[in-house]
Amino acid sequence: MEYHIFPEQQLRSFTENIFKAMGCSDEHAQLAADVLIKADLRGIDSHGVARLTGYVRLWEKKRINTKPHIKVVHETNSTATVDGDAGLGLIVAPWAMQVAIRKAEECGSGWVAVRNSNHFGIAAYHTLMAVEQDMIGFAVTNASPLVAPTFSTERMLGTNPICYAFPAENYPPMVVDMATSTAANGKLEIAQRKNTEVPNGWIQDKEGNTTIDPHGLKAGGSLLPLGSDREHGSHKGFGLSATVDILSAVLSGASYGPWAPPFVAFMDPLPNQPGQGLGHFLGAMRVDGFRPKADFKAHMDNWIKRFKEAKPINENQKVIIPGEPELAAEKDRKINGIPLIEAVVKDMNEVAAKFGLPIL
Amino acid sequence: MEYHIFPEQQLRSFTENIFKAMGCSDEHAQLAADVLIKADLRGIDSHGVARLTGYVRLWEKKRINTKPHIKVVHETNSTATVDGDAGLGLIVAPWAMQVAIRKAEECGSGWVAVRNSNHFGIAAYHTLMAVEQDMIGFAVTNASPLVAPTFSTERMLGTNPICYAFPAENYPPMVVDMATSTAANGKLEIAQRKNTEVPNGWIQDKEGNTTIDPHGLKAGGSLLPLGSDREHGSHKGFGLSATVDILSAVLSGASYGPWAPPFVAFMDPLPNQPGQGLGHFLGAMRVDGFRPKADFKAHMDNWIKRFKEAKPINENQKVIIPGEPELAAEKDRKINGIPLIEAVVKDMNEVAAKFGLPIL
Repeated sequence: MEYHIFPEQQLRSFTENIFKAMGCSDEHAQLAADVLIKADLRGIDSHGVARLTGYVRLWEKKRINTKPHIKVVHETNSTATVDGDAGLGLIVAPWAMQVAIRKAEECGSGWVAVRNSNHFGIAAYHTLMAVEQDMIGFAVTNASPLVAPTFSTERMLGTNPICYAFPAENYPPMVVDMATSTAANGKLEIAQRKNTEVPNGWIQDKEGNTTIDPHGLKAGGSLLPLGSDREHGSHKGFGLSATVDILSAVLSGASYGPWAPPFVAFMDPLPNQPGQGLGHFLGAMRVDGFRPKADFKAHMDNWIKRFKEAKPINENQKVIIPGEPELAAEKDRKINGIPLIEAVVKDMNEVAAKFGLPIL
Repeated sequence: MEYHIFPEQQLRSFTENIFKAMGCSDEHAQLAADVLIKADLRGIDSHGVARLTGYVRLWEKKRINTKPHIKVVHETNSTATVDGDAGLGLIVAPWAMQVAIRKAEECGSGWVAVRNSNHFGIAAYHTLMAVEQDMIGFAVTNASPLVAPTFSTERMLGTNPICYAFPAENYPPMVVDMATSTAANGKLEIAQRKNTEVPNGWIQDKEGNTTIDPHGLKAGGSLLPLGSDREHGSHKGFGLSATVDILSAVLSGASYGPWAPPFVAFMDPLPNQPGQGLGHFLGAMRVDGFRPKADFKAHMDNWIKRFKEAKPINENQKVIIPGEPELAAEKDRKINGIPLIEAVVKDMNEVAAKFGLPIL
């Protein structure tokens, strides 16, 4: 595949301009672009500017409101439900995380269920907002149905990510940010583009047999929950994904399970939606709600140090602390730029041209 | 293997008597027995009365205090840290969950980190306490180090379970209760007793090669994180297990990672413990902190109904809702009794004889 490398700032301005052309305020355009660029910097290419045209197409279908009135519709001291007014999840989720952080400042923790939203980008963006305030961040979201429960052939759940982020002292924050499917959809898309086989256990065909055909998903198959099969714990991946769906959508009043609105504009949401839009669930807990900050951070450092020193199987591959690869990518790409594949650049430029904006 | 079947009440009285003989108050003995019996009723044989003699041996080693002064040592309106005073986790965890529930009643949610505790039995016992109050329950705990991180041969983490429980209306509560390793240690023990091969991906030998030898763990190997290998997402299982360890122990001031005190009395905790005892983390969130109770429960019912109707791969095996098998076991065993294998009965009777108590 051919890559073009762009400086962060160029992609950022381009992305902001597209969001502004869609009708976003300057502030919203900057924030939405920041969430996407953060994904690209961290090496999560599937969730970066490559998705920009997807948001445009959903907006064209009137499924995204670029002038949302986001509001708290229900609350207690430490909990709230937010209605995103069909806004970009890239805007709605940070807004909701601010509510969670404010509640945590006041009473130790804050938990916010969000309905009537859209795809919120990388979960780590939101949890790291909490980390900056010396809080533990939590973020989950439901997503387009692509994953089948154990024993089923039906796409009932999204890749429903779970993210936790913890502040440390001398080490960077530890960030666990993972799809609850065995393989993220982004990894499958790479195999599709390259037309290479995928490992057994990533997807099943429409009859429920595991398949190594990367196009098996498009042919009516489904992604498999983390664990891949019953013998290796796929019921656990299913249980985690179900938990994410319930916290994000059943608790907030969003649409859940097979009714979760698909990210792709060419697929309409199913009829008889049980709720509004996609859902998220965000949380923040003050570290010093449990023990003095300095103690927690010193022990986080000790935890990270000890795990980095764990005896490796192979001396050339030490244990990786969750979040380390993303941080390494961020350091590299800040300096050396962000690579985008040819097809993504072409897609982005077509949208820019349609808006009468300069192309990349 | 030969089984003996006992009525619930007989095992309950037997267990209470053992705890009383260890010095527990009547109230504590009843509660501790209730947690163990609940595991047996729910079919989690590895966490039921089969563990009773393990608690006795830890007490003999003075690692369990049967007259603990459990107390809150740090708190905000929605968070707290509890010191378990080296008490039975079976007592300490329900005590801490009561604190979480009280805080949730007052401000929407309650989150309690616990240090200086011991094995807390099945996580579902504690989360179901929250469900009875129309709350969502959350419980995690760290545990004896048996699991290696991805890329390592070293046992750094326990099977560190995650449990969420959600109330529904006409359906029973949904309970996700899962080890973050591919296989629970209890399943491995069954294979060891039967001397049967285990699937690839459950354990690795001491060099880090996957092995089907059920005795591979005892020979210096380790259990593998959910996902089994890097290609199938073992870094996600590792990330989840790490999260459990940090919430349970780094946040509370308990011992973490390889320092987590082993459940078996014949292994001493490592020197230079970074904290006190095992740790747990428990949470309760009022459903009506987010939306009216009746709405949440009606949508939980709809969620469960829809997932039960998901197209099965095989008509004879429908999708299993998390918690269904445990509930089926509970209904059966309440009536038909609890089966224990010969070796467990023998072990329990030896302990009873030592205390001068009637045997089973």
